Amino acid sequence: MAVAIALARRGRPASAPNPNVGCLLVKDDRVVARGWTQPGGRPHAEAMALAAAGDASRGATAYVSLEPCAHASPRGPACTDSLIEAGVARVVIAAQDPDPRTDGAGILRLQAAGIEVVVHVLPAEARAAMVPWWTRQTLGRPFVTLKLATSLDGCIAMADGSSRWITGDRARAHGHLERAMHQAILVGRGTLDADAPKLDVRLLGLEDRSPKKLLLTSGAAPDGWTAVASPQAIDDVDSVLVEGGAGAASAFLAADRVDRLLLYRAPVLIGGGRPALGDIGLTDLAAAHGRWRLADTRRLGSDRLDVYERVREG
Amino acid sequence: MAVAIALARRGRPASAPNPNVGCLLVKDDRVVARGWTQPGGRPHAEAMALAAAGDASRGATAYVSLEPCAHASPRGPACTDSLIEAGVARVVIAAQDPDPRTDGAGILRLQAAGIEVVVHVLPAEARAAMVPWWTRQTLGRPFVTLKLATSLDGCIAMADGSSRWITGDRARAHGHLERAMHQAILVGRGTLDADAPKLDVRLLGLEDRSPKKLLLTSGAAPDGWTAVASPQAIDDVDSVLVEGGAGAASAFLAADRVDRLLLYRAPVLIGGGRPALGDIGLTDLAAAHGRWRLADTRRLGSDRLDVYERVREG
Repeated sequence: MAVAIALARRGRPASAPNPNVGCLLVKDDRVVARGWTQPGGRPHAEAMALAAAGDASRGATAYVSLEPCAHASPRGPACTDSLIEAGVARVVIAAQDPDPRTDGAGILRLQAAGIEVVVHVLPAEARAAMVPWWTRQTLGRPFVTLKLATSLDGCIAMADGSSRWITGDRARAHGHLERAMHQAILVGRGTLDADAPKLDVRLLGLEDRSPKKLLLTSGAAPDGWTAVASPQAIDDVDSVLVEGGAGAASAFLAADRVDRLLLYRAPVLIGGGRPALGDIGLTDLAAAHGRWRLADTRRLGSDRLDVYERVREG
Repeated sequence: MAVAIALARRGRPASAPNPNVGCLLVKDDRVVARGWTQPGGRPHAEAMALAAAGDASRGATAYVSLEPCAHASPRGPACTDSLIEAGVARVVIAAQDPDPRTDGAGILRLQAAGIEVVVHVLPAEARAAMVPWWTRQTLGRPFVTLKLATSLDGCIAMADGSSRWITGDRARAHGHLERAMHQAILVGRGTLDADAPKLDVRLLGLEDRSPKKLLLTSGAAPDGWTAVASPQAIDDVDSVLVEGGAGAASAFLAADRVDRLLLYRAPVLIGGGRPALGDIGLTDLAAAHGRWRLADTRRLGSDRLDVYERVREG
């Protein structure tokens, strides 16, 4: 299953609007095929693996990171039906599909066809691999990552606004990789006016991954940009990377709409510079604790990246 | 020699005004005695080890982290003479003593007495172990550590000044241990008036290590405190821990008088809070780079401590 989940990660974020799923077909202790959701959402992971396996899928075990879909669409058959037709003997599923069109119906149909079904194998890991899609599916809003690139004293620019560069090449390249992993990138009006950022992905081979560009503004957006009135107003993408500035970052934090925090920090002191955040509505220090959990930390050249995840109850 | 240097660390900071030195006596591949500079500076490391070894020092090798002193004082004989009298056969020295009263004279006297002398064994490590004394001896100023305890967004307090607590128990206990390792602690006028900090060492068994209390002020200091007019005005201690607030921190950074930076960081976001630093005289971002090197990083409960050292040329 861990391999199926690793395959699932390959589909992100290009699989949107479909979930990024991974599928591994195993027969007689050998892997006979692998599949993951293709760009645009089709073929599904199971369809890709079944096509690759051909006759070898008969009697095989399918490991899938998400319950196979039970609903046929104009774009293709239901994976549940395809697995049954292919003669798969056993299906191991990480997480049940929260989409109401499936949500257990796939499992029941497989079982009715005499296929052995095992569920809840590494479900948390599977959800983590498709957390953008899962968040929008279950909460009706995108999974939001906030990126901050600061000095050791928490400044995102000098007092005069200059910010090129605080972090180094490797940290900035990592930032471009994060862009490529998101469906949309958002900046505030001040950042657009001051920096006119291109927000493209400047990494060889990933240029076509440049995501949708959102502008947090009460007004109109220029060509190539989509205006967004508030953090709560985004419902048409699975994932948003908030890149700046302090106003946009603070608006998302004040609305408690940040799920993940990328903190790039350079070993420099600025002093009296522009702070990373403005008011985020905190009234009591005690309330600030317990909200963020360190999920990852790494060196990027002489900079450090700390990744924090929002701890949410239930 | 690494053991002798580890012994040297035991003497810090209580050995002041003398350097904290370590001494290991080895004979026939066995350690026969260990010594380190005692509180107040006497006995010296060599004297302590020779006293413990007794007759066993005859023909032994002495490993010392600093060249043995060549000058007798009213407080005791020169260690060079004591080593010769004890019949030590060989002396291995990490670093030559920069004190002009010795500075090579100890080595020459040992050699003149027919003792084999080896020098420059792990000199950088030895200097690091006694960096406060070494800094004052060679530069005429104390070694200064700046402590900052901030949120992820670089704030040392909320906008209303409340700062209890940003970091947790373990980070604060570590801060007390750092106090115990310093000869003096300094705060600015604003911190004294707002927090009336006791600056004592609240660690079991280390209560008597509470250091001298300095106040950065152009005016007078209250009872129990010593007034210091500027970062450049301190010349009577080997080590100073600058504890706050932003004004004092910025003054020391602007004067380039910070050698080591302790950055305690809690996984909280404050937003619009009080910044760790004010203006430190930076006029160009490029000039901020290359000044600080990460020397240590560790988790303290849910907080992180990053230790940076000032990179100085030559």
